[in-house]
Amino acid sequence: MGIDPGYALIGYGIISYNSGHFKTLTFGAITTSPKLSFCERLEVIYKDMTQLITEFRPDAISIEKLFFNTNTTTAIDVAQARGVILLAAKINNVPIFEYTPLQVKSAVTGFGRAEKHQVMEMTRSLLGLAKVPKPDDTADALALAICHANTGTSAYSKLMKGEP
Amino acid sequence: MGIDPGYALIGYGIISYNSGHFKTLTFGAITTSPKLSFCERLEVIYKDMTQLITEFRPDAISIEKLFFNTNTTTAIDVAQARGVILLAAKINNVPIFEYTPLQVKSAVTGFGRAEKHQVMEMTRSLLGLAKVPKPDDTADALALAICHANTGTSAYSKLMKGEP
Repeated sequence: MGIDPGYALIGYGIISYNSGHFKTLTFGAITTSPKLSFCERLEVIYKDMTQLITEFRPDAISIEKLFFNTNTTTAIDVAQARGVILLAAKINNVPIFEYTPLQVKSAVTGFGRAEKHQVMEMTRSLLGLAKVPKPDDTADALALAICHANTGTSAYSKLMKGEP
Repeated sequence: MGIDPGYALIGYGIISYNSGHFKTLTFGAITTSPKLSFCERLEVIYKDMTQLITEFRPDAISIEKLFFNTNTTTAIDVAQARGVILLAAKINNVPIFEYTPLQVKSAVTGFGRAEKHQVMEMTRSLLGLAKVPKPDDTADALALAICHANTGTSAYSKLMKGEP
């Protein structure tokens, strides 16, 4: 399960991966209304995350690592919401893995400097989807899920080959 | 209930306030071991916050507003932990109020530019404690609780007088 963190819109994508084969189980976005208080939005995120985890029982959650260049209220609120997402994973015993945008690009396209549209197109193609999922946050979440599947596999391959 | 947010150490202080009289019910700190994963630390914070709220049933939680000047991992992690604290308050139906350090200083000492040690000494004095509570985060949490009690009262007074 890949998660693109946020507080107004949280993209998610759930895939299965078996011997080089991807299958898309579901994707979409958790959204919270700006009419709610921030605490109410956190509660919606927690409850919706818990519901998704309970329904799909993912083996792992792959989430984007946060970096902030600016000291904005938005950045703080994204981090606060991400804490709640991590908590939902932990309380439901789903291991969580963090990846940087560079790691996601590399894992999906084989090229760390790939453009955003290339990552999205490759995500679409790997998952055999007719169109790139919208909104972008959803496609990003699916790319994060692919990244973990690929990284997990190569870590596994390395282990099998006795590499460090 | 005042809360000084953090992820390694979260100060808390619970007071009662009745017609100008403060009483200290409890104070201390939730701590999380650096040996735990970050998600495990979030879980400890959530469970300990829930336990405190369940035991003391505070009417309100007063928490410091976050501002970051630097883009550090620590700042992101404090924000992530603060999200979990807000969630614990919301899920247990405790209304939450945010105050800036300036508001806390003003409310406790009547002077926004007061030095930290003056705020601590005034907190000690208002609560009738023999010594300033340690660690500082605990004294800060008690000051946040006093700030809400005072601000709440003046808002109430204004309402009674028909002021805006």
